[in-house]
Amino acid sequence: MQLTVLGCYSATPRTFNHTTSQVLQIKNHLFLIDCGEGTQVQLRRNKVKFSRIKHIFISHLHGDHFFGLVGLISTFNLLGRKTDLHIYGPKGIKEIIVLQLKYSKTWTCYNLYFHELESNQPQVLLEDDKVIVETIPLNHRVYTNGFLFKEKPGDRKLLMNEVLNYEIDKAYYKSIVKGKDILLENGDLIPNEKLTAPPKPTKSYAFCSDTAYYPIIVEQIKNATALYHEATFLESHAHLCASTMHSTAKQAAIIAKKAQVQQLILGHYSTRYDDINNFKIEAQEFFENVICAQDGLTITFD
Amino acid sequence: MQLTVLGCYSATPRTFNHTTSQVLQIKNHLFLIDCGEGTQVQLRRNKVKFSRIKHIFISHLHGDHFFGLVGLISTFNLLGRKTDLHIYGPKGIKEIIVLQLKYSKTWTCYNLYFHELESNQPQVLLEDDKVIVETIPLNHRVYTNGFLFKEKPGDRKLLMNEVLNYEIDKAYYKSIVKGKDILLENGDLIPNEKLTAPPKPTKSYAFCSDTAYYPIIVEQIKNATALYHEATFLESHAHLCASTMHSTAKQAAIIAKKAQVQQLILGHYSTRYDDINNFKIEAQEFFENVICAQDGLTITFD
Repeated sequence: MQLTVLGCYSATPRTFNHTTSQVLQIKNHLFLIDCGEGTQVQLRRNKVKFSRIKHIFISHLHGDHFFGLVGLISTFNLLGRKTDLHIYGPKGIKEIIVLQLKYSKTWTCYNLYFHELESNQPQVLLEDDKVIVETIPLNHRVYTNGFLFKEKPGDRKLLMNEVLNYEIDKAYYKSIVKGKDILLENGDLIPNEKLTAPPKPTKSYAFCSDTAYYPIIVEQIKNATALYHEATFLESHAHLCASTMHSTAKQAAIIAKKAQVQQLILGHYSTRYDDINNFKIEAQEFFENVICAQDGLTITFD
Repeated sequence: MQLTVLGCYSATPRTFNHTTSQVLQIKNHLFLIDCGEGTQVQLRRNKVKFSRIKHIFISHLHGDHFFGLVGLISTFNLLGRKTDLHIYGPKGIKEIIVLQLKYSKTWTCYNLYFHELESNQPQVLLEDDKVIVETIPLNHRVYTNGFLFKEKPGDRKLLMNEVLNYEIDKAYYKSIVKGKDILLENGDLIPNEKLTAPPKPTKSYAFCSDTAYYPIIVEQIKNATALYHEATFLESHAHLCASTMHSTAKQAAIIAKKAQVQQLILGHYSTRYDDINNFKIEAQEFFENVICAQDGLTITFD
C-alpha cells in the first residue's frame, strides 16, 4: 500500500502549495482521492499514469477538493482514453460536470459513471476480492465523506511440513488456504489451524478531510494502518474551528489515539502557517507516530 | 499598453505548459483574457495583483479557456475581495459558475456581474473615456468571441508658442485641447489646428482565439497595434484545421498581413510540437513582425 500526496493545503492553490489530492495504490488499484485545481499537472509531475486511475473519490464540493475534476475528465477525453472511469462524490457532482461538458459540446470517448452519495451512514462504494472501500461520514459545512480503504485478508499460508506429514493430496491445497479442515481417509479430522498459518495482516487507509473534531468516526477507523486527518489549524487558532468546521493538529492526534491507528498523517494546512513542522510538534503531545503531509510526498506502508 | 502571457498552449495544462490566459494592461485597466485551469497560480507567479482585475473576458466555453475561472472567483472570495468583478463570456457561463458556488454553499463577498454574450455581430462590452472593448465574433466549434481592446484618442497637444502668441486666456485651454476653435476679441477665428498638434496615436490589441481561418475579422482588426492569433498547427497538419476549426501559423500570418497590423503574436500551440520557433518561421514567410507567445512573456507596446 502506497500513498502519494499530490496536494495537502487548504483553500487555494499557490505557486508551491497545491490543494487536496492524493493517489492511493492498494493491491491492484490506483485510487485518486479528491481533485483540487491543478491535480492533472500534479499527476504528471509525480509520473502517475493516467490510464491506471479508474476510480476517483471526491470528499465534498468545496473547490479546493474538486475544481480539478472537470479538467482531468476532459484531458482523459483528449488523450483518447478507453477505460471506464468511476466518480464517487456528493449529489450534485454529476450535474456540475455534465453541464460543463454540455456547453463545451464534448462528451467523453470513455464510459463515465457517477456514483452520487447522500447517505449519512457509512456505505460500501466498491468491493472486489482484494479491496473494500467505504465512506466515513464527516462533519463539515457541506455534506462530506471521508473514505476507508481496506485490504481484504488474503489466503492463509500452507504449513508444508504439516501438509506433507499427513500426506494430503495437492488437490486440497486450494481449499486448505481458504480455511477448510481436512478429513483424512482414516476418519481423522485435521483442523485448518494445524495446516496453515494466518494470512499476512491486512492494511487499511482512512482519509478524513474536511471535518470538525468528530469522534464518531473512531469506531469505524479503529486500528487503521494510517489515518490522514485534516489539521487546518494549530490550537492557537482553535477558535476558528467552530465556524469553519475544521480541526486542529491536537484534535487530529486525539482521534488517532482513540482509534489506535498505527500512523497519523496531517494535512490540509491553512496557508497562514509558514512552518508546518509545528503541526507535528502539536500533535505529538497526544500521539507519537505523526507525519506531516507535503506535496509530492510518497509513503509506503510496509 | 502591456501584455503578459500567462498561458499559451492548447488543450490541456502540463507541467511547463499552461492553457490560455493573458493579462492586458491598457490605460488604467488590467484586463484578464481567458482563464484556463491554473490561471490563479500563474497570476501569482507573474505577480499580478488580484484586486486590480475587475473585468474578465472569456472567449468560449472550452475547458482550456475557462476551467480556471471558478477557482479564481472562489479565491477572490476567500481573500475577502470587495471590488466588483465583471465576467464577459458566452451564454451558459453564469449557470456553470453559479451552480458550483451553490453546491459549495458559498457566495461571493463582492459583487459579481455576468455579461452573457450570444450575438454573432461585434458588440461593445465596455467603454469609458479612455478605452473601448468590443467582441470579434470568431469561427470555432462552439460560440466564440475574440476581443478588440482600443485606446480612445487623448486630448490634442497645446502648441504653447501659438497660444501665447494670440494671448488666449488660460480658461480656454481645456476646450482647445478638446479640439475647439477660438474666437478672438477682435473677431478673428483661430482654427484649432493652428493651436494644437494631434494627440498621441492610439493603440489597440486584438485577441483572436480560438478560430479557423476567418478573413471576415480583417476589417474590424485593421491596423491594430498587435494581433494575437491562434496558431494551433503548422501547415504540415493543416488537414486537422477543418475538423478542429483551428488555424495554422501561415493562416494567422495571412490575417495579420491583410489587416496590416503592426505585430503578430502567435499562440495556442498544439503540444505535439517540441520547437515553437517553427511557428515563427512558417508565419514570417507571409508577415514579417512575428513573436511567438510563451508562458510568462511580457510585451510592452511603445
